Amino acid sequence: MADGNRRVRSGGRAARRALRTGTDIAMLPGLRRALPLCEVMDGAQVERIDAASMDILENVGVQFRDAVALADWAAAGAKVEGEIVYPDRGLIRELIASLPESFTYHARDPKKNVALGDNQSIFVPMTGAPYLRDLDDRRRAPTLDDLAMFHKLSHMLPALHSSAHHIVEPMDHPISQRHLRITYSSMKHSDKTFMGMTTSPKNAEDVLDMCAILFGADFMESHPVITGNCNGNSPLVWDETMLGSMRAFCRRNQPVLCSPFVLGGANTPASVPAAAAQLNAEALSALAYTQIIRKGCPAIYGHYLSTVSMRSGAPMAGTPEISLMNFMIGQMARFYGVPWRTSGALGGAKTFDAQAGYESAATLSAVLHAGAHYIWHAAGWNEAGMHCSVAKFVVDAEQCAMAYRMGAGPDWSDFDAALAAVVDVGPGGHFLGHPHTLEHFESAFFMPELFDNNSIEQWQAEGSVEITGRALAHARALLAAYEEPVLDLGADEALRDFIARREREIPAADALNTEY
Amino acid sequence: MADGNRRVRSGGRAARRALRTGTDIAMLPGLRRALPLCEVMDGAQVERIDAASMDILENVGVQFRDAVALADWAAAGAKVEGEIVYPDRGLIRELIASLPESFTYHARDPKKNVALGDNQSIFVPMTGAPYLRDLDDRRRAPTLDDLAMFHKLSHMLPALHSSAHHIVEPMDHPISQRHLRITYSSMKHSDKTFMGMTTSPKNAEDVLDMCAILFGADFMESHPVITGNCNGNSPLVWDETMLGSMRAFCRRNQPVLCSPFVLGGANTPASVPAAAAQLNAEALSALAYTQIIRKGCPAIYGHYLSTVSMRSGAPMAGTPEISLMNFMIGQMARFYGVPWRTSGALGGAKTFDAQAGYESAATLSAVLHAGAHYIWHAAGWNEAGMHCSVAKFVVDAEQCAMAYRMGAGPDWSDFDAALAAVVDVGPGGHFLGHPHTLEHFESAFFMPELFDNNSIEQWQAEGSVEITGRALAHARALLAAYEEPVLDLGADEALRDFIARREREIPAADALNTEY
Repeated sequence: MADGNRRVRSGGRAARRALRTGTDIAMLPGLRRALPLCEVMDGAQVERIDAASMDILENVGVQFRDAVALADWAAAGAKVEGEIVYPDRGLIRELIASLPESFTYHARDPKKNVALGDNQSIFVPMTGAPYLRDLDDRRRAPTLDDLAMFHKLSHMLPALHSSAHHIVEPMDHPISQRHLRITYSSMKHSDKTFMGMTTSPKNAEDVLDMCAILFGADFMESHPVITGNCNGNSPLVWDETMLGSMRAFCRRNQPVLCSPFVLGGANTPASVPAAAAQLNAEALSALAYTQIIRKGCPAIYGHYLSTVSMRSGAPMAGTPEISLMNFMIGQMARFYGVPWRTSGALGGAKTFDAQAGYESAATLSAVLHAGAHYIWHAAGWNEAGMHCSVAKFVVDAEQCAMAYRMGAGPDWSDFDAALAAVVDVGPGGHFLGHPHTLEHFESAFFMPELFDNNSIEQWQAEGSVEITGRALAHARALLAAYEEPVLDLGADEALRDFIARREREIPAADALNTEY
Repeated sequence: MADGNRRVRSGGRAARRALRTGTDIAMLPGLRRALPLCEVMDGAQVERIDAASMDILENVGVQFRDAVALADWAAAGAKVEGEIVYPDRGLIRELIASLPESFTYHARDPKKNVALGDNQSIFVPMTGAPYLRDLDDRRRAPTLDDLAMFHKLSHMLPALHSSAHHIVEPMDHPISQRHLRITYSSMKHSDKTFMGMTTSPKNAEDVLDMCAILFGADFMESHPVITGNCNGNSPLVWDETMLGSMRAFCRRNQPVLCSPFVLGGANTPASVPAAAAQLNAEALSALAYTQIIRKGCPAIYGHYLSTVSMRSGAPMAGTPEISLMNFMIGQMARFYGVPWRTSGALGGAKTFDAQAGYESAATLSAVLHAGAHYIWHAAGWNEAGMHCSVAKFVVDAEQCAMAYRMGAGPDWSDFDAALAAVVDVGPGGHFLGHPHTLEHFESAFFMPELFDNNSIEQWQAEGSVEITGRALAHARALLAAYEEPVLDLGADEALRDFIARREREIPAADALNTEY
């Protein structure tokens, strides 16, 4: 079944349609970064963070609020007192040594497989928004149809390498059953990689069962096909939900993101290097635990990074310290040889105003220079994650395409031919009509579709539309041109059967208890 | 007179006022960058650009549309044919060898002197806008009062190191006399460094005469007190106005910015490295000429960098190729050992919408990683330079303050004390009430004043004001608290006398002829 599913459908009708609408929806391959890394620490400082993190692990310890994990740690030889695990540095180093430095993340369409690690990075849309700003820029509760819309857009936006999972929370479906429909939506509306829910260990098992239907259980034993995010509760706590979900993923050899949730100054010290040291200790403890669960299973060094506002206590985005911590965490992940995740286009603005633009561009630039591999929340995130904006989603995706171009570095391939044009044109001439220009203009310089660079007169003649309006029009045009990358019929039927069975088994009414 | 002028007034009343309004207007010292440089070329590629540029200079040549410059070049030993100068690489290298690698740029208040070169950078507001978006966000023609307003804001915004010159064009004053009032406004409303008009050689002389009144002619012989921008006409042309102004500045030992005006793809080849090679040849030819005018005179490797839209032919901002060219030009300037100028917060948006935010943050981030010394157009620039926005001006200035913090790198000074807080707090605790947090929060994490990080409910309760509205309110509050850094009375009188005399001598009606 696995092979049938991954039949390619993007060559024919979709390509012709894209041509008609003038929009190229072919996914860019995973980015191979050529940009130098921004490393703000020297070797001694990297070792100082490492030593501080190991001291924290050995002396302060990490709370694992989960009986199975505590037993696992004790069996692995760690000191355990109550719920606190005190792993020594020797054990941590031994455990993380088996983490793969890089791996391939498999998609339904194998042409859309992407590699993670070394200089290879991917862009993944935001997830988890309880609200959306919709195609009319109205802020409201999302539905399954809204989620499908975002999965369709993810499928069509070239620089996005994943359709993620619950980009918005489908509030029209019972919370206890939601993970099934979310996963099905990711699988059905896009043939790119996607993510899996970790809202409970049972939910994680359901998602992995659905992956087994789509990809085959055997295939999954040796091929990552899904990622699951496990948030830590900083400072120094991992809870039962996350640890149980982590075990579900790792046992089937699927990678989790071990993501301390950092609100700098609130749940970390008010110090960039000390916050990085604490985050590093937290991430290491979870990364090490993945290897207790299943040695050699891939995992990703994660984090959600913010500093908090002294005024509101809310997480801020686009601040200089978030950038600095990203540079530092990148160095630590490379020091340990583990692929790492960050967040790409964060915004705290309530609307898609200039604040959102500054915040997102500052963050995206920093994580690119930091060398992040798994650039999550790379499209749509605003209002500190409280809503996903359709307008921002498509603009962020274009920003990812621009970051992609910058990340690839200068193109020297036609340098001599281009210099010959300087000789031809000479002082005071112009290049617009030169054959080299005509041949290379489009490939040499990125032309943003969603930035307006017309004169003000032209812009006014076209209705004085700001970027939000233009972006929403673009989203509508994309959706009108959408063609479903049709699932293998057998797989689709099996997935629907599975969902129907699980929805019979899971009481819809018991909305708050997701443990089934 | 020079000493009296530079009397400090910011210690007393201004400081108290700032305290009352909650706004700190103390200028940040010039930035000392600790951030690693983003270098996208290896040594061989740097040499390849250098060699290509030298080939262009020797074989294609540079047009100097100015009889004096042509004679100067011939006397210096260059091959000259008609208006084309073909300087050989030996001559170029010999000439640029006398350019200072760094220098101090002197302000009226010597506490506001700033250093340029090595790892030292400054932020300078935009200039040259024919329109403004005013305190009501209305787009209209600017007046001398509007210009004064921008000079006052420049004086008060901590991360701006200069009040520049014609931030907006004062359209209510005759063009032939405008340079006098512009310069006076820069000198009077701010005691930071400022820039000088280069709209004609005679205008430049007037500006330098005014500097001689303010600083003393002798002081200027050994101290840079003003910078003048000289734009090249790419490809490979320097015109009479710019060259005459350049001579006026260099003869008095004042630095000019040698700035090829690059519209990538229109007046350069459609290739990032070849555009960089052409720009480099252009900049080198002017930098070398400054040393023919006066050996040892400081000068700045400049450029205006954009790529053009295929749709409108207009310059674009925030594109990946602009960032890549900035990284490359930074490497070339360091290769030659010359301080370099770039543009910091460019935007092509018609309003202060999210487009402007993305464009500006992308550019500012890139030039910081590129290691630019003189970060011009760092506040206010939008609509491809056609207007200066008050709202964007104050937000950009805050972005500069954030870039400043990022550029300074992580602060390790309290690392051990901050780690001790992790031990105190332990797993599952929080840091907000910890003594270390209370003492260090404010210094550890930047709190943007103009970004809103409140909940949507709080934001709605406060009137649902987007960033443009908040920024304009902030600008009004700043202006209400403005205190003039009063000029020495004698200098002020002498400046007014000079302006009165020159305005009698320069016919106001002859608006288009600025050659007096």
